[in-house]
Amino acid sequence: MLNFDFYSPARILFGKGEEKRIGELLKPHAGKVLLHYGGGSIKRSGLYDTVTDSLKESGLPFVELGGVKPNPRLSLVQEGIALCRNEGVDLLLAVGGGSTIDSAKAIAMGVYYEGNIWEVYEQGKAIDKALPVATILTIPAAGSESSGDTVITNEERQLKYGYGSPRLRPLFSIMNPELFFTLPKDQLSNGVADMMSHVFERYFTNTTHTDLTDGLCETVLKTMMKNAPLALANPQDYDAWCELGFSGTVAHNGLVGMGRQQDWACHKMEHELSAIYDVAHGAGLAVLTPGWMQYVYKDNINMFVQFAVNVMGVEGSYREPDAIVSEGIDRVREFFRKMGLPATLSELGIGEDKLEEMAKKATGAVSGEEKPIGGLKKLHWQDVLEIYRSVK
Amino acid sequence: MLNFDFYSPARILFGKGEEKRIGELLKPHAGKVLLHYGGGSIKRSGLYDTVTDSLKESGLPFVELGGVKPNPRLSLVQEGIALCRNEGVDLLLAVGGGSTIDSAKAIAMGVYYEGNIWEVYEQGKAIDKALPVATILTIPAAGSESSGDTVITNEERQLKYGYGSPRLRPLFSIMNPELFFTLPKDQLSNGVADMMSHVFERYFTNTTHTDLTDGLCETVLKTMMKNAPLALANPQDYDAWCELGFSGTVAHNGLVGMGRQQDWACHKMEHELSAIYDVAHGAGLAVLTPGWMQYVYKDNINMFVQFAVNVMGVEGSYREPDAIVSEGIDRVREFFRKMGLPATLSELGIGEDKLEEMAKKATGAVSGEEKPIGGLKKLHWQDVLEIYRSVK
Repeated sequence: MLNFDFYSPARILFGKGEEKRIGELLKPHAGKVLLHYGGGSIKRSGLYDTVTDSLKESGLPFVELGGVKPNPRLSLVQEGIALCRNEGVDLLLAVGGGSTIDSAKAIAMGVYYEGNIWEVYEQGKAIDKALPVATILTIPAAGSESSGDTVITNEERQLKYGYGSPRLRPLFSIMNPELFFTLPKDQLSNGVADMMSHVFERYFTNTTHTDLTDGLCETVLKTMMKNAPLALANPQDYDAWCELGFSGTVAHNGLVGMGRQQDWACHKMEHELSAIYDVAHGAGLAVLTPGWMQYVYKDNINMFVQFAVNVMGVEGSYREPDAIVSEGIDRVREFFRKMGLPATLSELGIGEDKLEEMAKKATGAVSGEEKPIGGLKKLHWQDVLEIYRSVK
Repeated sequence: MLNFDFYSPARILFGKGEEKRIGELLKPHAGKVLLHYGGGSIKRSGLYDTVTDSLKESGLPFVELGGVKPNPRLSLVQEGIALCRNEGVDLLLAVGGGSTIDSAKAIAMGVYYEGNIWEVYEQGKAIDKALPVATILTIPAAGSESSGDTVITNEERQLKYGYGSPRLRPLFSIMNPELFFTLPKDQLSNGVADMMSHVFERYFTNTTHTDLTDGLCETVLKTMMKNAPLALANPQDYDAWCELGFSGTVAHNGLVGMGRQQDWACHKMEHELSAIYDVAHGAGLAVLTPGWMQYVYKDNINMFVQFAVNVMGVEGSYREPDAIVSEGIDRVREFFRKMGLPATLSELGIGEDKLEEMAKKATGAVSGEEKPIGGLKKLHWQDVLEIYRSVK
């Protein structure tokens, strides 16, 4: 086990009806709120009214900024920063999924940042201040409700960059699984692929003596794989959504990756797809992950045997480890297929013309100074290109 | 799954050498520190020098209060409160195990409390203020390094009461498993029994649809049961201590019990043993837990089958669930025995004369107004007495 620093202060208020308390919960922390959200779904579902009624009842003034899109845009972030400054907002309430929360985090630090907030993403600058962000989660996927991470797309430059700081951990997040009942099926499936990837990126490691976190990762994965098909079959299955929602938080609050070398190659490879083709992050991950597994497993075959046996339930002869791993990866593909997720880049509408460009961008090779990605196996741009091609 | 409120803000700084940074870590948070510890072990091990050197290097003034004993005493807490007030201390640094940390938490809230701090424990009063507490853990057991809980013994009245508040969650805790190398074997074993009990108390439940937390509990238990014998056999096994230490924190930071009805009968029954006979908490739990399992399992036999199969590795016919459970409980007894823990009250030097008194105190029946204990099965004083007698 490696040395680690675990800090996950975001309070999680979980269960039926919690969103009705939002005004009372925010009141001690806020003078004026920016209510940040996406499109019309929270208006159609009635959540918008619940939230604004609660804010009004608590006598908490607020302004609004809707219009967050999947792969949240820098332009809207900049609009939000200006709005918060002009209106004297001192707390952001993000009502939505990971995109809305990530956008809120960008605004929260942008309010204090002199210059273009994109610099923070591009240069990984440390920030020393951000407004507090609270969230009401409507899509379990990104884990942004407890993490200090944010991913923003610079639409002009077709770049999608992530940034993380302990100062961006939400103050609290409300998760009422009933709010997930109306989620479109593809968003459920994309969300599950993203949540599973948050565990995969931490689980696959060369670090040894990691009994506890191995088991925690395996438990989270098995819980997701049991409950996702239940929620897909019956979108009103509260119990299944509870398991998925809570698993999504545990997957990304940091715990299950502590003391382990982590990987994150699949996330970096996927960001290139989203940045150029604006595909759903989870769908991109579902395509890339089995290809990545196939490409890297020989570098640590025992890790992949453990995965196949402990998570995917493969049985067989340990004297044929390749066969066990291969069956495990097949079952991952099969699971994604059952969830209605794509298996190839062409299903995402991505052709071969930009694969090399994306491989070079993913590894920084485009700017001349290559930074190989991945932890379990270091991937150069040629490796990334091979992985892209293996799932074309 | 039940609604829940998860909040675990204690930062965990884990691994080799972390304690050397204590001055630098405390500096932004403190003007004057109370260094609180137990007996001579931290002086013999050199940890006392490491800590005081680091505080001096950072120019952080401190006063000291040693002398914390297992089952920490109210009298020392009162001494600490007076000392902090007189010296203008604004942060407590507990260097030790759960007793030292619990004592520090009592002082931390006592400084602001008008009246006798024991009232807070006895009456469960809400507190609104406490000094921050940081810790350097030397015994993995109580989980107090991340929890908001504290247990104090009123030695005059032979009472041992627990109290919990989010305001008592430590600011941060340093856990360097190398500091555990010199722990006496009985303290290792007692600590493991306590840590396992923190999971048992959360795991055994009548709440259904708890896939994620079931699996998290099972993982923590299996990790402890794998690694405790390794550390017992080789006290310098860093990897085994890493697993035990980290597991102890996860066992008691709240996560694994979220959304579940919890039990805590064994802890309440054990507190009576410690209050009167001053036995080690973990040793008392090792005696009581299998007896409790045997007494209650028929109230939720499927829960105990799951435990026997998933945690204790029992195989057999599910058409004979009693046999599976019985084998599971036997394996718990066997594990504790291998760890050198006692199996009967008489091994703890506890006779039969006060069993009824303790059973009545555990359930409040002594004051006339009985409050049955336990979640999975409600236990009245007669039940507690039967459990005590079953392990006499």
